[in-house]
Amino acid sequence: MMPTESENKRFSFSTVIVLAVLLLVVLLTSVPYLVSIALAEGGAAADASPIFGVTIPPGYKQWELIAPAEEAAPLDELRAVVGNQIAIEAYQAGKLPFPDGTILVKRAWKRKQSPEFASATIPGAATTVQVMVKDSKKYASTGGWGFGRFANGKPVDEAQHRTCWGCHEARAKSRDYVFTRLAP
Amino acid sequence: MMPTESENKRFSFSTVIVLAVLLLVVLLTSVPYLVSIALAEGGAAADASPIFGVTIPPGYKQWELIAPAEEAAPLDELRAVVGNQIAIEAYQAGKLPFPDGTILVKRAWKRKQSPEFASATIPGAATTVQVMVKDSKKYASTGGWGFGRFANGKPVDEAQHRTCWGCHEARAKSRDYVFTRLAP
Repeated sequence: MMPTESENKRFSFSTVIVLAVLLLVVLLTSVPYLVSIALAEGGAAADASPIFGVTIPPGYKQWELIAPAEEAAPLDELRAVVGNQIAIEAYQAGKLPFPDGTILVKRAWKRKQSPEFASATIPGAATTVQVMVKDSKKYASTGGWGFGRFANGKPVDEAQHRTCWGCHEARAKSRDYVFTRLAP
Repeated sequence: MMPTESENKRFSFSTVIVLAVLLLVVLLTSVPYLVSIALAEGGAAADASPIFGVTIPPGYKQWELIAPAEEAAPLDELRAVVGNQIAIEAYQAGKLPFPDGTILVKRAWKRKQSPEFASATIPGAATTVQVMVKDSKKYASTGGWGFGRFANGKPVDEAQHRTCWGCHEARAKSRDYVFTRLAP
Protein backbone atom coordinates (compact mmCIF):
# COMPACT_ATOMS: atom_id res chain seq x y z
CA MET A 1 0.00 0.00 0.00
CA MET A 2 1.32 3.43 -0.94
CA PRO A 3 1.64 6.01 1.90
CA THR A 4 -0.91 8.81 1.71
CA GLU A 5 0.22 12.39 1.16
CA SER A 6 -0.62 13.16 4.79
CA GLU A 7 1.64 10.34 6.06
CA ASN A 8 4.50 11.51 3.84
CA LYS A 9 4.27 15.06 5.18
CA ARG A 10 4.09 13.82 8.74
CA PHE A 11 7.17 11.68 8.22
CA SER A 12 9.27 14.46 6.73
CA PHE A 13 8.21 16.96 9.39
CA SER A 14 9.19 14.55 12.19
CA THR A 15 12.47 13.75 10.47
CA VAL A 16 13.38 17.41 10.28
CA ILE A 17 12.69 17.88 14.00
CA VAL A 18 14.70 14.80 14.98
CA LEU A 19 17.63 15.92 12.84
CA ALA A 20 17.44 19.41 14.30
CA VAL A 21 17.55 18.04 17.86
CA LEU A 22 20.49 15.78 17.01
CA LEU A 23 22.34 18.70 15.39
CA LEU A 24 21.76 20.77 18.51
CA VAL A 25 23.14 18.00 20.74
CA VAL A 26 26.24 17.63 18.56
CA LEU A 27 26.83 21.39 18.56
CA LEU A 28 26.42 21.66 22.33
CA THR A 29 28.84 18.82 23.02
CA SER A 30 31.38 20.44 20.65
CA VAL A 31 31.42 23.79 22.44
CA PRO A 32 34.17 22.99 25.00
CA TYR A 33 36.40 21.64 22.21
CA LEU A 34 35.80 24.66 19.97
CA VAL A 35 36.48 27.04 22.85
CA SER A 36 39.74 25.27 23.69
CA ILE A 37 40.85 25.54 20.04
CA ALA A 38 39.97 29.23 19.96
CA LEU A 39 41.91 29.85 23.18
CA ALA A 40 44.92 27.92 21.90
CA GLU A 41 44.94 29.83 18.59
CA GLY A 42 44.52 33.16 20.33
CA GLY A 43 47.53 32.62 22.58
CA ALA A 44 49.79 31.08 19.95
CA ALA A 45 51.43 34.17 18.49
CA ALA A 46 52.66 35.77 21.72
CA ASP A 47 53.30 32.74 23.89
CA ALA A 48 54.84 30.15 21.58
CA SER A 49 58.29 28.72 22.24
CA PRO A 50 61.20 29.80 20.00
CA ILE A 51 62.30 27.29 17.33
CA PHE A 52 59.31 24.95 17.91
CA GLY A 53 56.27 27.22 18.24
CA VAL A 54 54.92 25.11 21.12
CA THR A 55 52.36 26.68 23.48
CA ILE A 56 51.05 25.72 26.90
CA PRO A 57 48.01 23.55 26.17
CA PRO A 58 44.76 24.82 27.73
CA GLY A 59 43.37 22.68 30.54
CA TYR A 60 46.60 20.74 31.16
CA LYS A 61 46.17 20.95 34.93
CA GLN A 62 43.16 18.66 34.55
CA TRP A 63 45.19 16.01 32.72
CA GLU A 64 45.99 12.64 34.23
CA LEU A 65 49.19 12.18 36.22
CA ILE A 66 51.91 10.09 34.60
CA ALA A 67 54.45 10.38 37.43
CA PRO A 68 55.87 12.71 40.05
CA ALA A 69 59.62 13.15 40.44
CA GLU A 70 62.10 14.84 42.74
CA GLU A 71 65.16 16.77 41.62
CA ALA A 72 67.86 17.27 44.24
CA ALA A 73 69.88 20.46 44.81
CA PRO A 74 70.86 22.73 43.17
CA LEU A 75 67.50 22.65 41.34
CA ASP A 76 65.79 21.28 44.45
CA GLU A 77 62.42 20.74 42.83
CA LEU A 78 59.32 18.58 42.90
CA ARG A 79 57.89 17.73 39.51
CA ALA A 80 54.77 16.13 38.11
CA VAL A 81 54.33 15.04 34.51
CA VAL A 82 50.77 14.89 33.16
CA GLY A 83 49.57 13.87 29.70
CA ASN A 84 46.65 14.29 27.35
CA GLN A 85 44.40 11.32 26.52
CA ILE A 86 46.57 10.25 23.55
CA ALA A 87 49.62 10.19 25.83
CA ILE A 88 47.88 8.23 28.59
CA GLU A 89 46.56 5.60 26.17
CA ALA A 90 50.01 5.16 24.60
CA TYR A 91 51.60 4.77 28.05
CA GLN A 92 48.99 2.25 29.18
CA ALA A 93 49.40 0.22 26.00
CA GLY A 94 53.20 0.49 26.18
CA LYS A 95 53.04 1.92 22.67
CA LEU A 96 56.27 3.35 21.16
CA PRO A 97 56.80 5.65 19.38
CA PHE A 98 54.12 7.91 20.87
CA PRO A 99 51.45 8.77 18.27
CA ASP A 100 51.12 12.22 16.73
CA GLY A 101 48.99 14.41 18.97
CA THR A 102 50.68 13.21 22.17
CA ILE A 103 51.27 16.10 24.58
CA LEU A 104 53.25 15.80 27.80
CA VAL A 105 53.45 18.62 30.35
CA LYS A 106 55.88 18.72 33.24
CA ARG A 107 54.97 21.01 36.13
CA ALA A 108 57.78 21.96 38.50
CA TRP A 109 58.00 23.67 41.88
CA LYS A 110 60.78 24.58 44.30
CA ARG A 111 60.75 22.07 47.15
CA LYS A 112 59.90 23.47 50.54
CA GLN A 113 59.70 22.06 54.01
CA SER A 114 56.30 20.74 55.09
CA PRO A 115 55.10 22.81 58.08
CA GLU A 116 53.64 19.66 59.65
CA PHE A 117 56.23 16.95 59.03
CA ALA A 118 59.99 17.36 59.39
CA SER A 119 60.58 14.48 56.98
CA ALA A 120 58.43 15.82 54.13
CA THR A 121 58.87 18.38 51.38
CA ILE A 122 56.01 19.92 49.41
CA PRO A 123 55.63 22.28 46.43
CA GLY A 124 56.81 25.84 46.96
CA ALA A 125 56.75 28.43 44.16
CA ALA A 126 56.09 27.17 40.64
CA THR A 127 59.27 27.35 38.53
CA THR A 128 58.72 26.08 34.99
CA VAL A 129 56.13 24.36 32.84
CA GLN A 130 57.72 22.17 30.16
CA VAL A 131 55.80 20.84 27.18
CA MET A 132 56.53 18.14 24.60
CA VAL A 133 54.29 17.84 21.53
CA LYS A 134 54.51 14.92 19.09
CA ASP A 135 54.15 15.80 15.42
CA SER A 136 56.31 13.48 13.35
CA LYS A 137 56.18 15.68 10.23
CA LYS A 138 56.44 19.15 11.72
CA TYR A 139 59.26 18.15 14.08
CA ALA A 140 60.93 15.50 11.88
CA SER A 141 64.41 16.87 12.60
CA THR A 142 64.01 16.52 16.40
CA GLY A 143 62.66 12.99 16.70
CA GLY A 144 59.09 14.12 16.02
CA TRP A 145 58.98 16.24 19.18
CA GLY A 146 58.46 19.96 19.63
CA PHE A 147 59.58 21.47 22.92
CA GLY A 148 58.45 24.42 25.02
CA ARG A 149 59.82 25.65 28.31
CA PHE A 150 57.85 28.34 30.12
CA ALA A 151 58.40 30.47 33.22
CA ASN A 152 55.49 32.53 34.51
CA GLY A 153 53.52 31.52 31.43
CA LYS A 154 56.10 32.94 28.99
CA PRO A 155 58.57 30.92 26.89
CA VAL A 156 62.20 31.09 27.98
CA ASP A 157 64.82 32.20 25.44
CA GLU A 158 65.98 30.47 22.30
CA ALA A 159 69.33 29.43 23.76
CA GLN A 160 67.58 27.32 26.41
CA HIS A 161 65.32 25.78 23.79
CA ARG A 162 68.38 24.74 21.77
CA THR A 163 69.38 22.41 24.63
CA CYS A 164 66.14 20.34 24.80
CA TRP A 165 66.61 18.01 21.87
CA GLY A 166 70.28 17.21 22.43
CA CYS A 167 69.65 15.90 25.93
CA HIS A 168 66.52 13.91 25.03
CA GLU A 169 68.28 12.47 21.98
CA ALA A 170 71.37 11.43 23.92
CA ARG A 171 69.64 9.88 26.92
CA ALA A 172 66.20 8.55 25.98
CA LYS A 173 66.36 7.35 22.38
CA SER A 174 65.13 3.85 23.24
CA ARG A 175 61.90 5.24 24.64
CA ASP A 176 61.04 7.69 21.86
CA TYR A 177 63.06 10.40 23.62
CA VAL A 178 60.73 10.53 26.64
CA PHE A 179 62.28 10.27 30.10
CA THR A 180 59.17 9.87 32.23
CA ARG A 181 57.76 6.41 32.79
CA LEU A 182 54.15 5.75 33.86
CA ALA A 183 54.02 5.41 37.66
CA PRO A 184 52.76 1.94 38.64
CA MET B 1 -8.37 29.16 14.03
CA MET B 2 -8.62 25.70 15.63
CA PRO B 3 -5.99 23.11 14.59
CA THR B 4 -7.36 20.33 12.42
CA GLU B 5 -7.35 16.75 13.70
CA SER B 6 -4.53 15.95 11.23
CA GLU B 7 -2.32 18.76 12.62
CA ASN B 8 -2.92 17.61 16.18
CA LYS B 9 -1.86 14.08 15.36
CA ARG B 10 1.23 15.30 13.53
CA PHE B 11 2.20 17.48 16.48
CA SER B 12 1.86 14.71 19.05
CA PHE B 13 3.72 12.22 16.86
CA SER B 14 6.65 14.64 16.46
CA THR B 15 6.61 15.44 20.16
CA VAL B 16 6.90 11.78 21.06
CA ILE B 17 9.88 11.34 18.74
CA VAL B 18 11.66 14.44 20.06
CA LEU B 19 11.10 13.34 23.66
CA ALA B 20 12.34 9.84 22.83
CA VAL B 21 15.53 11.24 21.30
CA LEU B 22 16.12 13.51 24.30
CA LEU B 23 15.54 10.61 26.70
CA LEU B 24 18.06 8.54 24.74
CA VAL B 25 20.65 11.33 24.98
CA VAL B 26 20.12 11.68 28.74
CA LEU B 27 20.42 7.92 29.24
CA LEU B 28 23.60 7.69 27.16
CA THR B 29 25.28 10.53 29.01
CA SER B 30 24.37 8.87 32.33
CA VAL B 31 26.00 5.55 31.51
CA PRO B 32 29.52 6.36 32.80
CA TYR B 33 28.06 7.64 36.07
CA LEU B 34 25.81 4.61 36.55
CA VAL B 35 28.69 2.25 35.78
CA SER B 36 30.91 3.99 38.33
CA ILE B 37 28.19 3.66 40.98
CA ALA B 38 27.75 -0.01 40.16
CA LEU B 39 31.50 -0.63 40.40
CA ALA B 40 31.73 1.22 43.72
CA GLU B 41 28.82 -0.73 45.23
CA GLY B 42 30.21 -4.03 43.99
CA GLY B 43 33.59 -3.53 45.62
CA ALA B 44 32.34 -2.13 48.91
CA ALA B 45 31.86 -5.28 50.97
CA ALA B 46 35.26 -6.91 50.56
CA ASP B 47 37.53 -3.92 50.14
CA ALA B 48 36.27 -1.34 52.64
CA SER B 49 38.53 0.05 55.35
CA PRO B 50 37.96 -1.05 58.97
CA ILE B 51 36.18 1.45 61.25
CA PHE B 52 35.26 3.81 58.37
CA GLY B 53 34.06 1.58 55.51
CA VAL B 54 35.94 3.69 52.97
CA THR B 55 36.77 2.13 49.59
CA ILE B 56 39.15 3.09 46.79
CA PRO B 57 37.07 5.30 44.48
CA PRO B 58 36.86 4.06 40.88
CA GLY B 59 38.67 6.20 38.32
CA TYR B 60 40.78 8.11 40.87
CA LYS B 61 43.87 7.87 38.66
CA GLN B 62 42.11 10.21 36.23
CA TRP B 63 41.52 12.84 38.92
CA GLU B 64 43.25 16.20 38.91
CA LEU B 65 46.54 16.60 40.76
CA ILE B 66 46.43 18.67 43.94
CA ALA B 67 50.12 18.36 44.82
CA PRO B 68 53.10 16.00 44.78
CA ALA B 69 55.23 15.53 47.88
CA GLU B 70 58.43 13.81 48.92
CA GLU B 71 58.92 11.87 52.13
CA ALA B 72 62.51 11.32 53.22
CA ALA B 73 63.94 8.11 54.73
CA PRO B 74 62.96 5.84 56.37
CA LEU B 75 59.74 5.98 54.30
CA ASP B 76 61.66 7.34 51.32
CA GLU B 77 58.62 7.90 49.14
CA LEU B 78 57.21 10.10 46.39
CA ARG B 79 53.55 10.97 46.78
CA ALA B 80 50.84 12.60 44.73
CA VAL B 81 47.47 13.70 46.08
CA VAL B 82 44.58 13.89 43.62
CA GLY B 83 40.99 14.95 44.25
CA ASN B 84 37.53 14.56 42.80
CA GLN B 85 35.73 17.55 41.24
CA ILE B 86 34.19 18.62 44.58
CA ALA B 87 37.64 18.65 46.15
CA ILE B 88 39.24 20.61 43.31
CA GLU B 89 36.50 23.26 43.35
CA ALA B 90 36.80 23.68 47.11
CA TYR B 91 40.59 24.03 46.85
CA GLN B 92 40.34 26.58 44.05
CA ALA B 93 37.76 28.62 45.96
CA GLY B 94 39.74 28.32 49.20
CA LYS B 95 36.59 26.88 50.74
CA LEU B 96 36.81 25.44 54.27
CA PRO B 97 35.49 23.14 55.58
CA PHE B 98 35.49 20.90 52.51
CA PRO B 99 31.92 20.07 51.41
CA ASP B 100 30.38 16.64 51.84
CA GLY B 101 31.29 14.45 48.89
CA THR B 102 34.91 15.61 48.84
CA ILE B 103 37.29 12.71 48.18
CA LEU B 104 41.07 12.99 48.37
CA VAL B 105 43.38 10.16 47.28
CA LYS B 106 47.08 10.01 48.04
CA ARG B 107 49.16 7.74 45.82
CA ALA B 108 52.58 6.74 47.15
CA TRP B 109 55.63 5.02 45.71
CA LYS B 110 59.09 4.07 46.96
CA ARG B 111 61.59 6.57 45.59
CA LYS B 112 64.15 5.15 43.22
CA GLN B 113 67.11 6.56 41.35
CA SER B 114 66.41 7.89 37.87
CA PRO B 115 68.43 5.81 35.38
CA GLU B 116 69.12 8.96 33.34
CA PHE B 117 69.88 11.66 35.93
CA ALA B 118 71.99 11.22 39.05
CA SER B 119 70.18 14.11 40.74
CA ALA B 120 66.64 12.80 40.21
CA THR B 121 64.41 10.25 41.93
CA ILE B 122 61.31 8.74 40.34
CA PRO B 123 58.49 6.41 41.43
CA GLY B 124 59.48 2.84 42.22
CA ALA B 125 57.01 0.26 43.50
CA ALA B 126 53.61 1.54 44.63
CA THR B 127 53.28 1.34 48.41
CA THR B 128 49.92 2.63 49.63
CA VAL B 129 46.80 4.38 48.40
CA GLN B 130 45.24 6.58 51.09
CA VAL B 131 41.71 7.93 50.85
CA MET B 132 39.83 10.63 52.77
CA VAL B 133 36.06 10.95 52.27
CA LYS B 134 34.06 13.89 53.65
CA ASP B 135 30.65 13.03 55.11
CA SER B 136 29.91 15.33 58.01
CA LYS B 137 27.09 13.14 59.38
CA LYS B 138 28.50 9.67 58.87
CA TYR B 139 31.93 10.63 60.22
CA ALA B 140 30.83 13.26 62.75
CA SER B 141 33.13 11.88 65.46
CA THR B 142 36.26 12.21 63.26
CA GLY B 143 35.91 15.74 61.96
CA GLY B 144 33.59 14.67 59.16
CA TRP B 145 36.28 12.54 57.54
CA GLY B 146 36.40 8.81 56.86
CA PHE B 147 39.80 7.28 56.22
CA GLY B 148 41.06 4.33 54.19
CA ARG B 149 44.60 3.09 53.79
CA PHE B 150 45.21 0.40 51.18
CA ALA B 151 48.18 -1.74 50.17
CA ASN B 152 47.90 -3.81 46.99
CA GLY B 153 44.27 -2.74 46.75
CA LYS B 154 43.35 -4.19 50.18
CA PRO B 155 42.72 -2.18 53.34
CA VAL B 156 45.40 -2.37 56.01
CA ASP B 157 44.44 -3.51 59.51
CA GLU B 158 42.25 -1.77 62.08
CA ALA B 159 45.18 -0.77 64.30
CA GLN B 160 46.66 1.34 61.50
CA HIS B 161 43.28 2.92 60.78
CA ARG B 162 42.99 3.94 64.45
CA THR B 163 45.99 6.24 63.98
CA CYS B 164 44.61 8.35 61.08
CA TRP B 165 42.29 10.68 62.91
CA GLY B 166 44.55 11.45 65.85
CA CYS B 167 47.33 12.76 63.64
CA HIS B 168 45.06 14.77 61.34
CA GLU B 169 43.23 16.19 64.36
CA ALA B 170 46.42 17.19 66.14
CA ARG B 171 48.23 18.78 63.19
CA ALA B 172 45.75 20.14 60.62
CA LYS B 173 42.70 21.35 62.52
CA SER B 174 42.87 24.85 61.04
CA ARG B 175 42.55 23.48 57.51
CA ASP B 176 39.68 21.05 58.10
CA TYR B 177 42.18 18.31 59.01
CA VAL B 178 43.70 18.19 55.51
CA PHE B 179 47.47 18.43 55.21
CA THR B 180 47.86 18.83 51.45
CA ARG B 181 47.70 22.33 49.96
CA LEU B 182 46.90 23.00 46.29
CA ALA B 183 50.17 23.32 44.34
CA PRO B 184 50.45 26.79 42.79
